[in-house]
Amino acid sequence: MEMTQWTVLVNFFVLSLEILQSTSNKLDNCKPVSYPKSCKELLHLYGCLPDGLYILSSSSGATYLTFCDMTTNGGGWTLVASIHENNMYGKCTVGDRWSSQQENNQNVPEGDGSWSNKVTFGTVEAATSDDFKNPGYYEITAQDMSVWHVPNELSVDQWKEKSIFRYHTENNFLNQYGGNLYNLYKAYPVRYKAGACKTNNGPSSPIVYDHGNAGSLPKFYGPSTTIEYEPGYISFRAFNNEQAALALCSGVKPVGCNVEHICIGGGGFFPEGGGRQCGDFAGFDWDGYGTHNGWSASKEITESVVMLFYR
Amino acid sequence: MEMTQWTVLVNFFVLSLEILQSTSNKLDNCKPVSYPKSCKELLHLYGCLPDGLYILSSSSGATYLTFCDMTTNGGGWTLVASIHENNMYGKCTVGDRWSSQQENNQNVPEGDGSWSNKVTFGTVEAATSDDFKNPGYYEITAQDMSVWHVPNELSVDQWKEKSIFRYHTENNFLNQYGGNLYNLYKAYPVRYKAGACKTNNGPSSPIVYDHGNAGSLPKFYGPSTTIEYEPGYISFRAFNNEQAALALCSGVKPVGCNVEHICIGGGGFFPEGGGRQCGDFAGFDWDGYGTHNGWSASKEITESVVMLFYR
Amino acid sequence: MEMTQWTVLVNFFVLSLEILQSTSNKLDNCKPVSYPKSCKELLHLYGCLPDGLYILSSSSGATYLTFCDMTTNGGGWTLVASIHENNMYGKCTVGDRWSSQQENNQNVPEGDGSWSNKVTFGTVEAATSDDFKNPGYYEITAQDMSVWHVPNELSVDQWKEKSIFRYHTENNFLNQYGGNLYNLYKAYPVRYKAGACKTNNGPSSPIVYDHGNAGSLPKFYGPSTTIEYEPGYISFRAFNNEQAALALCSGVKPVGCNVEHICIGGGGFFPEGGGRQCGDFAGFDWDGYGTHNGWSASKEITESVVMLFYR
Repeated sequence: MEMTQWTVLVNFFVLSLEILQSTSNKLDNCKPVSYPKSCKELLHLYGCLPDGLYILSSSSGATYLTFCDMTTNGGGWTLVASIHENNMYGKCTVGDRWSSQQENNQNVPEGDGSWSNKVTFGTVEAATSDDFKNPGYYEITAQDMSVWHVPNELSVDQWKEKSIFRYHTENNFLNQYGGNLYNLYKAYPVRYKAGACKTNNGPSSPIVYDHGNAGSLPKFYGPSTTIEYEPGYISFRAFNNEQAALALCSGVKPVGCNVEHICIGGGGFFPEGGGRQCGDFAGFDWDGYGTHNGWSASKEITESVVMLFYR
Repeated sequence: MEMTQWTVLVNFFVLSLEILQSTSNKLDNCKPVSYPKSCKELLHLYGCLPDGLYILSSSSGATYLTFCDMTTNGGGWTLVASIHENNMYGKCTVGDRWSSQQENNQNVPEGDGSWSNKVTFGTVEAATSDDFKNPGYYEITAQDMSVWHVPNELSVDQWKEKSIFRYHTENNFLNQYGGNLYNLYKAYPVRYKAGACKTNNGPSSPIVYDHGNAGSLPKFYGPSTTIEYEPGYISFRAFNNEQAALALCSGVKPVGCNVEHICIGGGGFFPEGGGRQCGDFAGFDWDGYGTHNGWSASKEITESVVMLFYR
Repeated sequence: MEMTQWTVLVNFFVLSLEILQSTSNKLDNCKPVSYPKSCKELLHLYGCLPDGLYILSSSSGATYLTFCDMTTNGGGWTLVASIHENNMYGKCTVGDRWSSQQENNQNVPEGDGSWSNKVTFGTVEAATSDDFKNPGYYEITAQDMSVWHVPNELSVDQWKEKSIFRYHTENNFLNQYGGNLYNLYKAYPVRYKAGACKTNNGPSSPIVYDHGNAGSLPKFYGPSTTIEYEPGYISFRAFNNEQAALALCSGVKPVGCNVEHICIGGGGFFPEGGGRQCGDFAGFDWDGYGTHNGWSASKEITESVVMLFYR
C-alpha cells in the first residue's frame, strides 16, 4: 500500500468520524416531526395494531393523546369525545360541558356550545371520569361513527370488555354532513327554539351492534320511553315538546316529543319542570335517579359515559 | 497489502457511507426539541413567515401552540390572550375567567386574579369561543402590544380579515412596566378598592390603527359613553365610581368614572346594581344586551373577543 | 502496509461500526421522545441534578412538566399535586377541585372525586395560584411522600426557600397502599358517611421535618384544635362528628372528631353549619378568615398551597 492510498484512507476515516460526531449531536436534539392525524391513518401505516392509546397530530402540528379502536369491524376508530354525567342532581352546573354550565337560562339558548365549537377539554385517561373532547372532534374528516357506553371510572384497558353496549354505522353518513359532528351541528344547531319536535329533528343513521343489541334498550331507557323511539339508529339534534334541543340519541331514532329521556347533551334552556332537564344526561332522572321507573333511565346507563369515535 | 484486503476495506467504506447517508436522511425528518420563545424570535430566524399557528417554547421547555401575526407593521406579534364573554347574562359565573367565577363578592376583591397570575387556560384554536391565556402572557418580555377585536366563533384563518378593529402601540411602553401585562398588573392590581376613579388609574399608551379607526368607537361603545373617554389609546386598570377595578380599556383612555361600559375584565366585586357589572365584559349590557342604547355597547363588540398580542 | 497499521485500521472500523450501531438504535427510539417517568428515575440517570422543572413521560407516552426536588434527603421527589384554596368564602364552588364544585350536596357524597380518579388539572407554573394534579398522581409507584406548604402566588424558584414548613416520610408506607394516593384513596374513599370519626379513619405515617418542626403547628392550626391531634404524622381520610370525609391531615394524626379544622380536601357533603365546611380548606375559617382564633387556622397557612410529592 502506498502513502497516497494511506492518506486517502485516513481522510475517509476522519470524514466519517466527523459526520458521526455531528449526527450524534443532532440526535440529542431530536424529536419526530409529526404523528398521524387519525387512528385510521395510523392503522394504514402499520397494517395491524392493537387497541390502545396513541399520539395524534392536529393539522397545526400540536399533538394529543387519544384511544384508537384498531380491531372492531376493521379498526381505525378514533375516540374524539366522551359525554359524562358528573352530577345528575346538578342542573346545568359545573361539569355539564355538553349542555350548559350557566344554569337553566333562556338567554343562553345554545348553552356552552360544545357540540359546534372548537373548545376542547378533559384527557383520554380520565374519559370515564370527566367530559372529554379533543381536536379530532372538529378536525378529522370521517365517514362513520361508533359509540361505546362504558361504566364510569373504568381504566382504558377495561373499556371495551366492560362496555354495556357498542355499535357503529357503516353507511358513510358523515359524508353528507361535512365529515364530522362539528360540521353536522353547525348545520343543525343544538339551540332552544331552533325548531320543533319531530318536524325539525336532525339526521339519523342506522347502526350495527358490536356488543349488545337493540333488544337491550328497554333495560336502559325508562319503561315509558318505549313508544318514543325506533331502535337501531343513532340520531342527532332532537327537539322536545317545549322546544328544548337535545344533541344525541344513542341507539334510537325519536318518534315522539319526550326526547329528553332518551337523548343526551343539549342547549342551555329546558322549559319543563323548572330546568330539571337541563344537564348532560337531560331528563334521565325524571322519575328518580337510576330507578328505571316511568321516564327514568337505569342506574347502569346513567353511570356510564358515552364515547364517540370517528372513522 | 493485497487486492482482496483492499476490496474488503472499500466495501466497508461503501457500507459505512450508505448507513451514514440513510442516517442523515432520517435526521432531516427530525426537528429540535426547543422552539423559539416568541413569534418575534421565530420571525428573526426565518426573515419572513406567513401569519398562522406556530409552536413556541416556554423557558421550562414546555411547548404551546399559538397564533403569530407575522405581517402587521413588520410582524412578530405573539397572541398571548383572548377575553371572551361566554354569557353576558352570567354575572361572575363559570367562564368569567378574566373577572371572577365566584359571583359578585366583596370578599374576593381580585376575583380569579388571571391578570396577574400564571394560571393558563383555553386553546388558540378555540380563542374566539372561550377565554385563552398561554405562558407567553407572563414569560415573554415585550415592548409593544397589538389588539384585535374578532367576532366570536370565527376560525383562525378568518380572524384578521374579519376583525372589527385592530391596532398596535409603537412607543415601547411595556419597557416601563416589566415587559408584559403580568408584571404591569402586579404593579397595578385589578382589585376592588385598590384605588379611586381617575386618581388611581393605571397607564395608557397611544395606539396606531391597523384596521378601522378611532372614528368607529361610537359605533361600538354606548352613546352615553362618549364623554367618558379620549380615543386613540389603550389603558390599563381603571376604577369606576364605586371603586370597582376594570382591567383593560381598548381604544380609549378613560376620563370619567363610568368605566365599566368601556373597559373589560376586572376584579371580583362591583357594588353598583347588585353585581350586574360583574363579568368579563362588565357593564356592556347596562341598558340591555347589544342594544347600543344609553350605556350599552353594540351587539357587534359584545359578541367579539379581544385578542392581546405582544412584540 | 505493516501489521500495526492494519490493526489500527481494523480498530478504526470496529469503532466506527459500533458508533453507527448505537446511532441506529437511537433512531429506532426517535419515534416518541421518551422522558423518565419520575424525578427519581431522572435523578438515577444523571446522579446529581438541581431542583427545578423537568419534563416527564406518562406510561402512554404523553409528556408533562413538573417540579423535581432533587436535593432533600437524597432527592428524587416528584411534585404530583397542589391543593390551593382559591376562595375560602366559596363553599364548594368553582375552584374547589379537591372537594366539590357542586355546592354542599348530600347527593354528591364524593364531591368531584379528584382524590381517587384520573382527572388532571392546572399547571406546575401556576401551582401556587390554582389546584394542580398531573398524571404522576396515579401513575407513579412510590414508597414515600413529602409535603410542602408554600405561600400563594410564589414563583417556582421561591417555593423551597419560602415554604412555611416541609417534611417527608421515610418508612416506605406507600408500599402497603398500592404505591400512590390514587390507590390509597380507592381503598379509603373520601366519601360522606363511608365511615365514622376515629373508628374508620385511614392510615397515618410518621414524618421527618425538613423545614420547621412539629412545635410550629400551633401557630398554624386554630388554638382549639391542639387537643384534636397528635403531631408528627401525615394522615389520610378522616371523618368528623357528622361523618363528613376529609382527605389529608398535614403534620398531624387526628385523635378527635373536629377534623375539618386540621385536615384539607374532602367529599361533597358537610352537614354541620349549612355547608360552611365544604371546600378545599374545609373549616379553616370556622371562627373567621385567617383569625387564628378558636377553630380558625392562621392567615399564613390558609394562604399557602399544600404540595404533594412522591418518591
